[in-house]
This record gives sequence, C-alpha cells and structure tokens, in this order.
Amino acid sequence: MAYSEYKMWLQDNGRAPPVVNSKIEERILNHWDNIDGSVERGYSGRSLFFSDGNICYDTARIRDYARLLASIGINRVCCNNVNVTERSARMITEKLLPDVAKLAAVFREFGIRFIIAVDFTSPRLLGGLTTYDPLDETVTDWWKKAADDVYKHIPDLAGFLVKADSEFRDGPAALGRTQADGANSIARALKPHGGKVYWRCFVYNCVQDWRDKKTDRPKAAYDHFFPLDGFFDDNVILQIKHGPSDYQVREPNSPLLGAMKHTNQAIELQVTQEYTGQQIDLYALAVQWEEIFSAPISDTRTMRDLMGREVTAIAAVANTGLDMNWTGHTLAQANLYSFGRLACDPSLTARAVLSEWIYLTFSNNPKLHEPLLEMMLKSRSVYEKYTTPLGLCWMVNINHHYGPSPEGYEFMKWGTYHRANREAIGVDRTEKGTGYTAQYHPYLNKLYSDKETCPEELLLYFHRLPYDYRLKCGKTLLQYMYDSHFEGYDEVEGFIKTWDSLKPFLPEYAYSSVAERLQQQLKNASEWRDVVNTYFYRLTNVADANGRVIYE
Amino acid sequence: MAYSEYKMWLQDNGRAPPVVNSKIEERILNHWDNIDGSVERGYSGRSLFFSDGNICYDTARIRDYARLLASIGINRVCCNNVNVTERSARMITEKLLPDVAKLAAVFREFGIRFIIAVDFTSPRLLGGLTTYDPLDETVTDWWKKAADDVYKHIPDLAGFLVKADSEFRDGPAALGRTQADGANSIARALKPHGGKVYWRCFVYNCVQDWRDKKTDRPKAAYDHFFPLDGFFDDNVILQIKHGPSDYQVREPNSPLLGAMKHTNQAIELQVTQEYTGQQIDLYALAVQWEEIFSAPISDTRTMRDLMGREVTAIAAVANTGLDMNWTGHTLAQANLYSFGRLACDPSLTARAVLSEWIYLTFSNNPKLHEPLLEMMLKSRSVYEKYTTPLGLCWMVNINHHYGPSPEGYEFMKWGTYHRANREAIGVDRTEKGTGYTAQYHPYLNKLYSDKETCPEELLLYFHRLPYDYRLKCGKTLLQYMYDSHFEGYDEVEGFIKTWDSLKPFLPEYAYSSVAERLQQQLKNASEWRDVVNTYFYRLTNVADANGRVIYE
Repeated sequence: MAYSEYKMWLQDNGRAPPVVNSKIEERILNHWDNIDGSVERGYSGRSLFFSDGNICYDTARIRDYARLLASIGINRVCCNNVNVTERSARMITEKLLPDVAKLAAVFREFGIRFIIAVDFTSPRLLGGLTTYDPLDETVTDWWKKAADDVYKHIPDLAGFLVKADSEFRDGPAALGRTQADGANSIARALKPHGGKVYWRCFVYNCVQDWRDKKTDRPKAAYDHFFPLDGFFDDNVILQIKHGPSDYQVREPNSPLLGAMKHTNQAIELQVTQEYTGQQIDLYALAVQWEEIFSAPISDTRTMRDLMGREVTAIAAVANTGLDMNWTGHTLAQANLYSFGRLACDPSLTARAVLSEWIYLTFSNNPKLHEPLLEMMLKSRSVYEKYTTPLGLCWMVNINHHYGPSPEGYEFMKWGTYHRANREAIGVDRTEKGTGYTAQYHPYLNKLYSDKETCPEELLLYFHRLPYDYRLKCGKTLLQYMYDSHFEGYDEVEGFIKTWDSLKPFLPEYAYSSVAERLQQQLKNASEWRDVVNTYFYRLTNVADANGRVIYE
Repeated sequence: MAYSEYKMWLQDNGRAPPVVNSKIEERILNHWDNIDGSVERGYSGRSLFFSDGNICYDTARIRDYARLLASIGINRVCCNNVNVTERSARMITEKLLPDVAKLAAVFREFGIRFIIAVDFTSPRLLGGLTTYDPLDETVTDWWKKAADDVYKHIPDLAGFLVKADSEFRDGPAALGRTQADGANSIARALKPHGGKVYWRCFVYNCVQDWRDKKTDRPKAAYDHFFPLDGFFDDNVILQIKHGPSDYQVREPNSPLLGAMKHTNQAIELQVTQEYTGQQIDLYALAVQWEEIFSAPISDTRTMRDLMGREVTAIAAVANTGLDMNWTGHTLAQANLYSFGRLACDPSLTARAVLSEWIYLTFSNNPKLHEPLLEMMLKSRSVYEKYTTPLGLCWMVNINHHYGPSPEGYEFMKWGTYHRANREAIGVDRTEKGTGYTAQYHPYLNKLYSDKETCPEELLLYFHRLPYDYRLKCGKTLLQYMYDSHFEGYDEVEGFIKTWDSLKPFLPEYAYSSVAERLQQQLKNASEWRDVVNTYFYRLTNVADANGRVIYE
C-alpha cells in the first residue's frame, strides 16, 4: 500500500489498515528508555520519548516512528524501561497519565496499542500501602483502582509489562508468593478492560557463588516457571527470552518455550545489539533469528511450529533512539525491519527480509544488492568467529558488554562461568553435569548430551572439553579457536573492501557513516582476536599451528 | 593544650596557635569531593562541603572538623576534587567566591589555609577564550585576573591544586607545552599574592595497548618530570604519589621523589582506602607509611631524610564524610590521625601514633590497649596476605577497586599487567626488561634488579618469576601464594575473636559497628582467598601442599 493510499484508507476508516495477516497476534517492541532520557543498552542516542524526568518528544517524529513501526507490522509498543524507576512507575498515576495518553494516541493512529511497564511494588511505592503482597486484598484493590484509572485515559491499552524477582527487583518471591500469584493479581485488575499482563521470565539467582557448581543459570527460567503451568490466568503472557542465558551470540533455544501447554507465551528477542556489537559492529540479527525459528524443539517440531500456537506473541527490545538515522549504525535499521517482518511471518528467511530491506532502503541494482546482501548474511558468523565461537559465551567486558574480557565474569555473582583451566574449558550441562539438558524434550536431551551429535556451534555451551579435543574438521578445539579468531578479523577486513567497492551506489551519508563504523569494528575484532588468542595461549602454551602472531 | 586553653589562646591572639613545630611546612588534606555531594573514592557518606551542585554545609560541623584537623597538625585543606567538573571549576569565579570564602573562613579560624582545585582549561572553559595555551598572553592575563579576584575574597589562600594531562583531563601536553610551562603560567598569577601551584605528577599513558611491553606505567612520572628539574618556578610544588603505581597495598617508593634537586616536592598519600579495604576491611595505614619513610632512596639515605629538605610538603586524600563517625569504619579514624601526626613528624613510628590514637579515643586500659594495638599493627600485613602479596598488585575488580578480579585489568588500557601464564607471573622491570629500575639511585637499581637482594615483599613488582621459584623461606612462589591467602583469611578470623574479647572495654556503637565490618571483611577475605587460589590452581594444576580446599 502506497502512503497516499494508506492515508486515504486512514481517512475512510478512522484507523490504520491491518498491514499483515499474521499468525502472531501480538508483535511487540519493548523500549528500555528511562524517563531521564537515557536508554538502557541503547546505542542510537537519547530516548525518543523522555527527557530529564518527563515525557517529552517531537510529535512529528513520533508519528514518523509509529508509521515506521506499523509499516513493518508491529502492533504493540512499550516506551518505558522494564527496569522501572520510581518516577517511571508514576506513569500509571493521574499526574502523568494525561501525558502518557497523548503519547499512546500517536501510536493509536497507526494501529499500535500501548503497553506500560510497571513496578510490581507499586501498591507500596505509589499507594503508600505497607505491602505489595499479591494475595493481600488492599493490594489487589489498589491494582484494580490503578487499572481503572489508566483505562479511563487509554481505553485500548494492551496491558502492563512486569519485570519482577529479577536482578534485584522485588517480586512475589520476596513475599513467599509464586510467580503466578504475582502475575494473576495484576491480570485480574486488567481483565475487565481487556488488558493483559506481560510477565518476564528472566528470573534467576543473580547473587550466585562462583564456587557453587550445581546452580546453573540456564536452568533458572524453566525451574521457576514450568511447575506453574496451568496456574496463570488467561490474560497473562509469559515473556520468555529466546535463549536461556541472555541474548548471547549463540545459545540453544530456551527449553521453557513450548514446554508449557496451558500458559500463554511470548518469545523475547533483542534488536538492540547489547552483546552483538552495539551498533558499531555489523550484525544482521535476522540470520540468528532464522536459526532460532528453525531449531528443533523435539524430533518432529521446530521453534517455528510453536509460533502462532503455544507462542502467540513476539516481543523484542528496540534499537532506536534520537539519532537521525534511528539506529546509530545505518545498516542496523535492517534489524528493526527484520524483527517486524519475522514477527509477522517467522517462516521468512533472513535472505528474503534482508534482500527486501536493501531494496527498499538503497536500490535493487545488483551491483549493490548482491554484495551487500552477502555481507550482511555473513555478518553474524563473522562476529561470532572473532568473539566467542562454539557456544562459549560471556567472555565480554563486564557491565557495558562491548569488547573482550575472558575472565571478566568468571568470579562474579551472575552465574556466567566457563571455568577454563590449563587443560579444558566449558561447563558440562548434561545429566552428568548440571542436568540442564534434561529440561529439553528427550530427543534434544540426547542430541545435546552426546558430544558427537551436539551441534558443533553449541559444543561449549553443553560440554566441558579439553583443548586438544578433535572437532569434526580434524582441528583441535584450541586450533579452531585460533583459526576462528584470525578468520573473523580477516573477514572484517573483507567487509571494509566490499563496502568501499559499493561507494558509487550509496548515498554519501550512508557510505561514510558505515565506513567509519567498520573501522571501529576492525579495531574491536583485533582486540577480540588478540585478547582471546593470548588468553588461550597463556593457559596452554601451545602456539598457533600456522605461526601467526599471538601475543605473550 | 586543653580546649579551654586553646580557646583562650585564640581570643588573645586572634588566630589558631601553632600546634606543632614541624619540619614539614605544608601538611595538606585533599578532599575528592564533588560539588554534587558525592565523594570520589569516598567510603564515609556524602560530602561534608557540597550538595546538589552547591557549597552547602553545617557550619558547626565544619568548625568541629577544622578543629579536628588542626589538632593533628593539618594546616592546608582543599575541599573540591582534583577531577574538577565544570561547576566546581567555577569556584574561582565571582558567582561562587563569596560562598567559597565563607567556607575558607571557618578553616582560617583554626590556622588552616585553603587550597582550590582548578581546571587547567579554565581560560577557555570559564573565560570564553579560544585556547588555554599557557604561553598565550591572553591566557596568562586570564589567570592573573582570576587570581586577583580570588585573593580579594581569600587573602590567605595557599594556592591552586591542578591535575593536568592526567586520565583524560587536558593539560599543557595537549598543546605541545611542557608541564613546567603549564605549572608556571598559573604560578606566576599566584606569585604576587604569595600563592602556590600544587601540580600533580600523576601523568601516564592511560590508553596503553596491553600488547605493548615497552611502555611501563611506573616509569611515567619520572620520565615526564625529571627532565624538567630546574624549570619550575619557586612557587610550584610537584605533588608526587608515594608509589609509582597508584596507592597499591605494596609498592616501592617513587624514584621521582628526591631525584630533582631544584624543584619543590610534595609526597602524596591516600588516607581514603581505595585499594586498601575501603573502610570495610581494617587497614592501619600508619604501618605502610612508616615503611615508606623508612625505605632507602640510596645507600646512605631513606625517604625520611628527604622530608623537610627536598620534600617540603605532604598531601593526602581524605577519608572523611558525613557519616556520624567521620570515617565510616570507626577504626579508620586512626588513619586520619596517623596522617596528621606523621606529616608533622615522619620519624614517629606506627606503634607510637596508633597507641596515641587508641589512648585518646578509647582508653589506656592495657586490656583494651595492647590487643587493639597489636591487631591494628598487624592489619596491613593481613590485608596484603589475602589480596596481593609479594608486590603483585592490580588483581582488583575494575572501577570500584574492592574485591578480587585476577585478570580484571589484564587486557585494559591502564598499563596494569601481571601477564600471568601457566608458568610464570610478573613483569621484569630491571634493565633487562622495561628498564624501570634504572630510574633509581644505582644502589637501589642494583638492589631491586637482583632477585636475591630484592626485598621479597616487592619481588613480583620488579621480577617475572616461575611459580616454582624458591623463596628464602624454602617455599615455592605458588605455595607461598596459597599459604599467604589461607593465613590472611585465618587472621581475619583472629581479628574477630580479638574484637569480641574487647567488647567490655568499648562503647557499644564502636563495638557493634566495627564487629559488623569485620564480618564483611571476613567475607571479602574469603572471596580473595578462594578466587586468587583458584586462579593460580587453574593456571598451574598444582594443588596446595597441605591439602586445603582450593576450588576448581
């Protein structure tokens, strides 16, 4: 539909046209925008919605943004961070609701329903109650009143998003209540208005003792939520991260997805590139998402088969901000585009959506289109090569998560350990180890538990292996690590050459801004290559078989 | 002098009595207080002087504080952080000067002269000039005018403190000028008023490439400043950190101290326990300071012999804040006390000043006095044992600097590497290595360069050694590491027992608040013991000779 047609449709119908006929009912974008104007894990400038403690935006730009989101099929948006601050918690109070409603109205024009992230302790924090116990009547009454107030201002609000019992945020567990108690208490307040609770499942022990080898963070979501299947109200949606760790470059799918038969589920992805290059390094997420959807969940089904059935919603963390090109890295626009397209239709291939994006954004001139498409399709594996291949994960600098720190998380409380010594690396997550694989369908448990059948790209996610372990290619694990890091760096050099060759076909701004970021990426790749190779060399004292430089 | 006598003296003379006849003319306390009320490396609550961007204090309490400082011989104070923010830089402008002068007046009552930390780029930042080039006449005119303004309000100001070309702060080097050009340009503006420039020498490459084995951070201060001896005006004092690294638990003395024959020098210590337990862990700094003063600087002289001759001033970073007991940890009061006493008379022993402090603070009951004194005297070596013995340094968590992270700084830009591999650890700083030892007097160069004569507690500061290197006690380096960490932890347990036994002789608040911190210290010691031991065990695969638990 052309924009002129679209506008006409809008005039005639008083609402946005349905842009897709998707099997996935809810296609949700979560912003992690703070009301002070900063964006948690944001790499595209300040917040589009907030500034200095206030709701504050350029209406014309938000209209552009809503149209942009609607055009790729997104139909739910949450503007405030799930890590709700006290000020942001007040978005459901009379003081801020008129302003929130105005913002919601801009999105409504384009058929996008608003979600508000709320603080689970609001009855105490805002209501002055002595508790936020979900089974306490004064608490449930408070939520009911709060919902009634909110719906007066935003009658089509999709619901509330909640991060509870997660990373030092209070939740029902702190009061001895279940996650279902917590979610249902709010859901019942929203129910009369047709609203839902989007309840995040990122619940794990974030004060783990590194000495404790039994606790295994990837097991946490399943352990906490699977036993509660059937106890959640029908307007609760559990929002489950696609992987059991935290948006790493390579993880298996979460065993919780699809495991529950009587609970609404949403899969949560991350468009913002927290662990995947931070919109400095090129990383086409569509490639990873296609893999996620294609991965088996049993001997007969893939994740894709869950979509529109057990999993009725897709949420993702936004990568947009006030930067003129929305996403910092111009090619990172493709990630937002891909999210919308794959959320509408998870059967699309990365090749198809990236191809579309290049066509719509630049041109279909094959001299540009083909090389750029190949470069983007390759970008994920290149990033994986020079960072943490084989499912290794977590060798990242602490807190900000850009660049290498092989032991940065090794002795911390976050449950993220590889336990490398001079002989071996990795955690045995089979039933002989932490038992994590037992959370999967027996077919996958068997597949992952056997080193021979475990997909090699996930080998170090599931197994502890000696450095001289032979991979299928005949290389040792150590030599594969070295090779991978050298190759990854070399391939970034290749990206730079490709990009330069495309200069004649690109707008100047796009060319030069991406060229600059590719140089930053090369520097990052060199840092990753040298730090990780040196780390393994110091541990093993085994030199590169091809005599390349590894620093001492 | 009793307080009643003191007050009478004050009335009769209109100024504070000289509390000491010290060889050290200037005994300076540097606060790292930010104007927003936070304190950089502060562990005793918010700032005594600032809040929310303003000068803001309780006059009665500041009077108490000034009296407290005067009573231990401190006669200079700088209240604002050397990392000057734009707002704090404005303390030398007409807008803030009346308030600054009022604060200075409180200290003046007690004979303490004020120092203001200024931003080297002020002529551009505040004056609107296009440059801050110290050789530009508009710039020197600007400083002259600024000094004239300041002295109208604070006629006895001691001078300006400057951190330039240091940790991302601009300075003369950015404009191709020398440190002397920079310091002198401001000194000449202060000269007519009798003021001085306190010019910090913490200049080093803070964006070092870890691959670069030639650059060695400990060499930096000497390399930057020694060649300029004789080029500094006579009202410039170079403020030199006692050690070449950064207030580590064990460092050699800086070779710059005493090396310059024609330049005024101040030694800079740190009372606030940035790397020494953060006022959670017990650490009597007097012990370390006594060692610093006792250490040789040649075959015939010690650091103590420099004091009052080449080194005419002592500065230290304060450990005080709004906490009711001033220093967070009640026993950390002893560190402020010790600093004042040792600054007045560097020949005092740690035993003498700590004994005084216990007597003045609690009692001279030998049942309290003796055990507490022994515990405090031991506290530095205990902390050293469970953290980084043998001069190892820098195995600390990044940024906040509390707790262990063996490779936290290993691949960073700060120039702080131990380069441990499976066979050896440490940096060779002799002339066969980075050449750092050549900055010392030939006697010390020889002493430190030979593994056999190098003081063992500094062995890993100067040498790279294999884990099976035999120490004089007959233990391998590795076994010494293990033993040291086990012992350090056990000795903290001993502290707890001692402290409990002292309960009958202590005020309840002092007893319980310190008892609580000792429990925190025990936890910290356990973390250090286990992380460092595990780190070495993973690298070496050599178990503890005594079969104690080392985690895998």
